[in-house]
Amino acid sequence: MAEPLEEQHPQKAVGWAARDSSGVLSPFTFTRRANGANDITLEVLYCGICHSDLHSIKNEWGIAIYPMVPGHEIVGIVTQVGSNVKKFKVGDKAGVGCLVGSCLSCESCTQDLENYCSKLIFTYSNVDKDGTNTHGGYSNKIVVDEHFGINFPDNIPLDAAAPLLCAGITMYSPMKYFGLCTPGMHLGIVGLGGLGHVGVKFAKAFGMKVTVISTSISKKKEAIEQLGADEFLISKDDEQMQAATGTLDGIIDTVSAAHPLLPLLSLLKNHGKLVMVGAPEKPLELPAFPLLMGRKLVGGSGIGGIKETQEMIDFAAKHNITADIEVIPIDYVNTALERLSKGDVKYRFVIDVANSLQSS
Amino acid sequence: MAEPLEEQHPQKAVGWAARDSSGVLSPFTFTRRANGANDITLEVLYCGICHSDLHSIKNEWGIAIYPMVPGHEIVGIVTQVGSNVKKFKVGDKAGVGCLVGSCLSCESCTQDLENYCSKLIFTYSNVDKDGTNTHGGYSNKIVVDEHFGINFPDNIPLDAAAPLLCAGITMYSPMKYFGLCTPGMHLGIVGLGGLGHVGVKFAKAFGMKVTVISTSISKKKEAIEQLGADEFLISKDDEQMQAATGTLDGIIDTVSAAHPLLPLLSLLKNHGKLVMVGAPEKPLELPAFPLLMGRKLVGGSGIGGIKETQEMIDFAAKHNITADIEVIPIDYVNTALERLSKGDVKYRFVIDVANSLQSS
Repeated sequence: MAEPLEEQHPQKAVGWAARDSSGVLSPFTFTRRANGANDITLEVLYCGICHSDLHSIKNEWGIAIYPMVPGHEIVGIVTQVGSNVKKFKVGDKAGVGCLVGSCLSCESCTQDLENYCSKLIFTYSNVDKDGTNTHGGYSNKIVVDEHFGINFPDNIPLDAAAPLLCAGITMYSPMKYFGLCTPGMHLGIVGLGGLGHVGVKFAKAFGMKVTVISTSISKKKEAIEQLGADEFLISKDDEQMQAATGTLDGIIDTVSAAHPLLPLLSLLKNHGKLVMVGAPEKPLELPAFPLLMGRKLVGGSGIGGIKETQEMIDFAAKHNITADIEVIPIDYVNTALERLSKGDVKYRFVIDVANSLQSS
Repeated sequence: MAEPLEEQHPQKAVGWAARDSSGVLSPFTFTRRANGANDITLEVLYCGICHSDLHSIKNEWGIAIYPMVPGHEIVGIVTQVGSNVKKFKVGDKAGVGCLVGSCLSCESCTQDLENYCSKLIFTYSNVDKDGTNTHGGYSNKIVVDEHFGINFPDNIPLDAAAPLLCAGITMYSPMKYFGLCTPGMHLGIVGLGGLGHVGVKFAKAFGMKVTVISTSISKKKEAIEQLGADEFLISKDDEQMQAATGTLDGIIDTVSAAHPLLPLLSLLKNHGKLVMVGAPEKPLELPAFPLLMGRKLVGGSGIGGIKETQEMIDFAAKHNITADIEVIPIDYVNTALERLSKGDVKYRFVIDVANSLQSS
């Protein structure tokens, strides 16, 4: 009987993995493939904890593969480069986001939209080209085709920039695609969590006026004073919402719980765009009349392609944009996930992998 | 006591009006305002019967004003021009569509999007600037600010072109705005009625591949052989719909009954656009995942501005596009409305006003 593919992999790795849908992670030893001609190997320094890690760990989307080493906001130092590698050299700072593979030849891939390739390979809990399971950045090393690596400029702090690889590109890409990135435009951002708070920063860097729309008055002070938002709306305050009718050019909606779209559509000017980047499980109610009467649209967007992710990181470095983070040791990860599920983090946990994994 | 404004109007007019929500029209004598400096007066030759006439007559949208002379697909001959009028001279062929007024100064109006002006005035069942009620084209004459008049080229048959003033622009405008007008693109059109059938003609004139999506197999032969559609899908045939997954660049959805969006979203390629021009009363179910996974969007569009309506008529004249019509005398209008409510028309009734109103 042939040796399992994983066991043929020569690079030993350690990390923390979920073994089942209980939501609890524990230390895990596994292997990574040899560094191929097109590959780079990263020593992982930091990895952000994304809300989708929580969904994946608990198998809430029904596609989990266990054991699962989560994490797709990965930054580190390049320790090996293959003979064909051009983008990186040993010692470079590099990042790996949500994707580690795609076909590279379809219409999406040839337009630098690997994120919409039907054969895309997610960074963890997915099956890689060699048939082994992918594992993410809650681990000490990762091997990836250089195509899916992101160069990190020297001036960007690696811990606070890690979340940009998912949260950042998730907000940046729709702003660009839907034309919601023009100075003077007025953008709404629904939900002030990991996604929303970096969205405010990108929108302000684009020179836009930003209104944060939230259910929680407790976030108003931070939104305006710390993140630089211009206005704050309580979505459940009918009077406030009414007064803001027809004022926004666009809205990026980060909320993944079920919520009504009509009040948001009402905030839009004619020809305004509501873009969903959170994915409620159940269908939302879409009233047709507001779309017709104001030529509005409801769109969606999922992360971004590699070229645009690089552009976003370079833009962030230039404009000093990073996530607001709480750095934790890896043995705090279960507590962090528990707190994340309650929204108790401002605004992103980042695991200090390099300094805590060896000792755990 | 001041004379009612209507009674101060010097131009006597005759038409057919609904007196209440029963849905029955009958002959009606009323007045039109004097032809002002910016106005033209039209002798109405033809008026199309739009599906929205049916909704309006029966007060299904709750905003009816009775007595109501319906009709917003109006073509005729200019019989008077005001001293400031530049676009028309007496004897010209001219059309009036869904709008007879707007503020002409707001952001929408200054962008030639009078149809999205918050002060737009509909051609009938609305209140005009002088406080009188507007009345439409089921009548022998109409007075309108020349801004809202459309020039009709000599080579376009007036009866069959009349429906373009609503049905035509309703389909043409979203094709242009949403970029669904490029040769080689593949467009789906949902519903083959008054809107859908002219949509097929415009899409073919743009050089697109067209798939008609319908609940009724009976329309397949006409769609392909008479209207020039390339393909035909039965929306309730899961196998057919499955086979067409991911093939369309865009869809224009003309259906105003409640219907599921997910099967339509599935027909779209990545970045595809589903544009609603029919307005179901109740909210539709919008699943978020397909939007995110393929960066798709659901938009809406309502008729079009005056400049674009002129562009559409000129395009139609150049490409020999007209509606397929059944011409009727005005005393057939109640029967026609009854048949329209059952979908029993291919594809638009047009009232021969000039030849039947005097004698009725």
